[in-house]
Amino acid sequence: MPIVTEPSLLSAPLHDVSWRGFASDNYSGVHPEVLTALAHANGGHQVSYGEDEYTARLQELIQEHFGNQAQAFPVFNGTGANVLSLQSMLPRWGAVVCAATAHINVDENGAPERVGGLKLLPVPTEDGKLTPELIDREAWGWGDEHRAQPLAVSITQSTELGTLYSIDEVRAIADHVHGHGMKLHMDGARLANAAAALGVPLRDFTTEAGVDIVSFGGTKNGLLFGECVVVLNPDAATGLPYLRKMNMQLASKMRFISAQFVALLEDGLWLRSAAHANAMAARLRAAVDRIDGVVPTQPTQANAVFAALPSGAADRIREKFRFYDWDASRGEVRWMCSFDTTEDDVDAFVEVIRVETAE
Amino acid sequence: MPIVTEPSLLSAPLHDVSWRGFASDNYSGVHPEVLTALAHANGGHQVSYGEDEYTARLQELIQEHFGNQAQAFPVFNGTGANVLSLQSMLPRWGAVVCAATAHINVDENGAPERVGGLKLLPVPTEDGKLTPELIDREAWGWGDEHRAQPLAVSITQSTELGTLYSIDEVRAIADHVHGHGMKLHMDGARLANAAAALGVPLRDFTTEAGVDIVSFGGTKNGLLFGECVVVLNPDAATGLPYLRKMNMQLASKMRFISAQFVALLEDGLWLRSAAHANAMAARLRAAVDRIDGVVPTQPTQANAVFAALPSGAADRIREKFRFYDWDASRGEVRWMCSFDTTEDDVDAFVEVIRVETAE
Amino acid sequence: MPIVTEPSLLSAPLHDVSWRGFASDNYSGVHPEVLTALAHANGGHQVSYGEDEYTARLQELIQEHFGNQAQAFPVFNGTGANVLSLQSMLPRWGAVVCAATAHINVDENGAPERVGGLKLLPVPTEDGKLTPELIDREAWGWGDEHRAQPLAVSITQSTELGTLYSIDEVRAIADHVHGHGMKLHMDGARLANAAAALGVPLRDFTTEAGVDIVSFGGTKNGLLFGECVVVLNPDAATGLPYLRKMNMQLASKMRFISAQFVALLEDGLWLRSAAHANAMAARLRAAVDRIDGVVPTQPTQANAVFAALPSGAADRIREKFRFYDWDASRGEVRWMCSFDTTEDDVDAFVEVIRVETAE
Amino acid sequence: MPIVTEPSLLSAPLHDVSWRGFASDNYSGVHPEVLTALAHANGGHQVSYGEDEYTARLQELIQEHFGNQAQAFPVFNGTGANVLSLQSMLPRWGAVVCAATAHINVDENGAPERVGGLKLLPVPTEDGKLTPELIDREAWGWGDEHRAQPLAVSITQSTELGTLYSIDEVRAIADHVHGHGMKLHMDGARLANAAAALGVPLRDFTTEAGVDIVSFGGTKNGLLFGECVVVLNPDAATGLPYLRKMNMQLASKMRFISAQFVALLEDGLWLRSAAHANAMAARLRAAVDRIDGVVPTQPTQANAVFAALPSGAADRIREKFRFYDWDASRGEVRWMCSFDTTEDDVDAFVEVIRVETAE
Repeated sequence: MPIVTEPSLLSAPLHDVSWRGFASDNYSGVHPEVLTALAHANGGHQVSYGEDEYTARLQELIQEHFGNQAQAFPVFNGTGANVLSLQSMLPRWGAVVCAATAHINVDENGAPERVGGLKLLPVPTEDGKLTPELIDREAWGWGDEHRAQPLAVSITQSTELGTLYSIDEVRAIADHVHGHGMKLHMDGARLANAAAALGVPLRDFTTEAGVDIVSFGGTKNGLLFGECVVVLNPDAATGLPYLRKMNMQLASKMRFISAQFVALLEDGLWLRSAAHANAMAARLRAAVDRIDGVVPTQPTQANAVFAALPSGAADRIREKFRFYDWDASRGEVRWMCSFDTTEDDVDAFVEVIRVETAE
Repeated sequence: MPIVTEPSLLSAPLHDVSWRGFASDNYSGVHPEVLTALAHANGGHQVSYGEDEYTARLQELIQEHFGNQAQAFPVFNGTGANVLSLQSMLPRWGAVVCAATAHINVDENGAPERVGGLKLLPVPTEDGKLTPELIDREAWGWGDEHRAQPLAVSITQSTELGTLYSIDEVRAIADHVHGHGMKLHMDGARLANAAAALGVPLRDFTTEAGVDIVSFGGTKNGLLFGECVVVLNPDAATGLPYLRKMNMQLASKMRFISAQFVALLEDGLWLRSAAHANAMAARLRAAVDRIDGVVPTQPTQANAVFAALPSGAADRIREKFRFYDWDASRGEVRWMCSFDTTEDDVDAFVEVIRVETAE
Repeated sequence: MPIVTEPSLLSAPLHDVSWRGFASDNYSGVHPEVLTALAHANGGHQVSYGEDEYTARLQELIQEHFGNQAQAFPVFNGTGANVLSLQSMLPRWGAVVCAATAHINVDENGAPERVGGLKLLPVPTEDGKLTPELIDREAWGWGDEHRAQPLAVSITQSTELGTLYSIDEVRAIADHVHGHGMKLHMDGARLANAAAALGVPLRDFTTEAGVDIVSFGGTKNGLLFGECVVVLNPDAATGLPYLRKMNMQLASKMRFISAQFVALLEDGLWLRSAAHANAMAARLRAAVDRIDGVVPTQPTQANAVFAALPSGAADRIREKFRFYDWDASRGEVRWMCSFDTTEDDVDAFVEVIRVETAE
Repeated sequence: MPIVTEPSLLSAPLHDVSWRGFASDNYSGVHPEVLTALAHANGGHQVSYGEDEYTARLQELIQEHFGNQAQAFPVFNGTGANVLSLQSMLPRWGAVVCAATAHINVDENGAPERVGGLKLLPVPTEDGKLTPELIDREAWGWGDEHRAQPLAVSITQSTELGTLYSIDEVRAIADHVHGHGMKLHMDGARLANAAAALGVPLRDFTTEAGVDIVSFGGTKNGLLFGECVVVLNPDAATGLPYLRKMNMQLASKMRFISAQFVALLEDGLWLRSAAHANAMAARLRAAVDRIDGVVPTQPTQANAVFAALPSGAADRIREKFRFYDWDASRGEVRWMCSFDTTEDDVDAFVEVIRVETAE
């Protein structure tokens, strides 16, 4: 007796699959290879909550990429990965130094504070990047019971402003942070884009550079959803299994997060997709550099282009392609490229920009 | 230039797809129609965080099933759905009366307390079901600032013990709860199984019976993962969008949770799957009722069978089919059936039970 | 120039100082010696937040009473002391086994859960006292990420029901708890009453019996307000200074909490007051044991008498002396004696009870 | 039978009552009139937790000072008052705009975040004072679920930098804040100093200027300890009784906090003490203005003097009088005057400063 006896009525997508834009790398869908991986992982039973073959395989792959000591904890989303990472490194009285523009500070509706019970110590930056000097503006006051104790630093790679830490920059921060007895977290929602941009293995600017724990992003790299907390320094983090559950980030059918990551990591899909997105951003940047009305506001080092536009231009361009204002007060916009952005998408977009910023 | 240039190396599942058991309805995978729906939802761009066509369609379907006032908030998992539901109904000083066996009390590592900031007031029950009388053991003390204020009740339908509230029982609880000025939450991780068992539309024992908010489960009904908070009484809940985000339950590519639910709800897949799982449990129960060594410990009203086995039998049976002890001290076990359990699975399992409990 | 130029207009108390009752040991005021101690501690400047002479002296006295390893952390109130104690012993995923009647469970409006982020695992008892067997009803499931991890036990001495753990009972619990790798907290809001009743030094049933941390109560022993977290096993608790501050229990003019405790501990005031309160409860109990209508419901082992009264009697008695119902459904009331209860108070109260329970 | 049978051995203070300094207004002790008031409030029984005559009288006095709609909630300390105030005004997703130097941001070890579950949005200022323009740097993004919702502003009066908001400045902020649909909290740890400096009744720059809730400080105005949350706009705050208890700020013998405040408010002690402290700061400021090596860094508008000193001078001066560095990197120090600072204290201090800053 078949368990499904009627054909699906869902014979077609509900949405216009030809609609594209430059709003966010989470507007795109799932990479076809990832969908295939989901189908392979389906069928039969697997033990829930992570005792499955896909999570075991993911653990191996994470160690290949991040070193033998690395431990993988798949979770649902980036906010969850960040809060879980930070909580696992910090006592209840801990505080986290971060860039004022960090996702944990501005885009998580206070989850690090409200759910994590952490205090953030944000530092203004020019380009979304911390330095030892910037960190020291808030890294002080240890032993003073009145001050939330700065015991960790969080950096984002690539940053929310599309910029990149070099390996040396990460290492300098890690050494500085560890010299203070603090720990280093990397928000890697776009870690793959950073690796592709740096042209080095993932471990070179994470494990080898002294990072203690990483939020390794999958969603923006072509997954349905799924991120992975990767503990690089097991001495720096405790209680992950419990924290993941109590933070509501433990998937019952975890095989389906793990299988997606396996698809990413098994044969380089993660890198191909990220390199492609970066290349599309570079193509876009090169083109708009030749348009007078467009004033880039950040280096284009990964898959984002930030630029200031003449008054009114952004809204006119948006009639054709959706994207977000970054700082409307100065006409700054953000354009993101994704694994599925095509050269034709870029070229068509550039043409609209050219027309709408003229005059 | 194609964005994917190499074939996937993932040519086969990593797991034994023939392995099956009776451990949990989250050991099973994804219903094939749901996978198909994911493929349909893919391609092109969709606005993230819920402004997509699939979430819009889900909203319509939820209203068809739960009434025009219903509001759908897709989330990642059941613990997230429960904490979000309860927080949205309660002030910071609220407490929740629940059965001592409730998932929120025993299986969420304190997430309702730690993340939700709620106090639970658990009440022992025989069968996992609350009654007005049982509720009143903890529903008292309003206005006393020393007592966590009992302002909501949470019931599970079908319960963690495989039992079922009748429509009248739900309504009696709702009337009683509302008479106290309290609100009623239903943990519906297996809401579909309850509807199938009761043989009535979802709204009959939820909206129409006076429930204020439901955690509507998808995962155990054949999704990859995905649950849906459904607000039935908009006056009873506030701040859902903010709470979902800060509780780390907001999916960026939400279309992929919504599309799965659309696949469930569009043409009755939810009901077919649930009815099938229930039927398999009934088949199992009928068979073990004829085995002397097996002593059922709860009525079989949905997709679970609870029974006490002779000493040692559970472990012998588990050599063939995996399942969990429920109360090892008295030899009680839990057997769950799923949307993909087959008659052959049941019959083979029964045969093993028969052999291993003989003597 | 004098800093105070006008005489106080406050020439008399606002309240009727002759009004007395048996409602609670926190209805009484401050012991006169404690007021004198406050006056002595006043004048001039002292470093705030605990670097003062009185806190230093308190530290010495605490070590005299609890052993050389003991550490004192004065706080404002009992709920604060309990939450601080428990948080200092437990990781974020910890849970606390306690009696269902424990103050932390029923009288703190969920502060342990909401502020402490802890889960309580309450166990019903007959007399407010846990035993190893009762503890084991909830002390299980270590390593299971779904279960809030039972890593501490909290007992109250003397209990909320006026009963007392013997030294051997505390030691048996401590050994059992430590055998599980758990820690033991004692809520000692009435620790002095327990010591007086047992007739032994404080350390005999705390430090020497294996307790790890104590909430040492001052308020009910004749202070204005002030409690003291006493860490008996420094290996069992961390971060107290930070936790006290972030839990809003750090007094700036700490000398005034410490000086009160010094007044209690310096020359035995704590014991004289507690012994007196206990003696008054014993006198009350002895008298009501001879009244037919009064049915004691708990042993009278410290400064509380619990009894069931004939219908209507409690309200009639309350026209003369205030006290609380404990379990109105069965006519059970609680009568508390305090350091300032007199023999005349007791005798007058007994006479009213005798009259109103007659018939 | 007397309940106290032995004389106290505490015949003398443990500390040097002649030691004085300029470190903090919480280094000073209790005003003698306040001690007297405590003695008057003692004796007999009073209902605990606030149902006493002193709390009732305090409620009347608070209404005299802040208007008939005002409600008083005595608490233990300033951090408690602030967290309670803010929680009572905000939903779980709320955020609070404050000056970067605000006590809630830098001196409460994250209690607003960790206990209150709030997000702070700090804004750098020159003088510790917010303005509508400064507030608008963070007051935006309503309706965006990713952003902690800025629903309240907190200002400190007088500020942590010893500066003062004029009535018009407060009113401009209140109007601006209310125009955004936000609420206004005033941290009044030194509210009395502000009133004395402005020369107006308390209500003129609080209730009448549009403030919704005030943390009214008592400790720095001569109490043992004790602060008072004063709700000025009852529509702006809810759940205070419950929040006070669960935040561990509910005193059992509340009469002793209330009686202290009654002593402050009954006949103007609050104002005399504050005016005196301000006058001493003015005297100090006037004197150091004539010392070349001392460079004031903030206006002296209440009871604090901020100044930069030549290298090494601070440590030399501290050999005689204790005080704190404010910003050691630029030689900035803070000198606080208190209700018990004398003209002789100031003159002696000035002489030391003169000597040690002379070359």
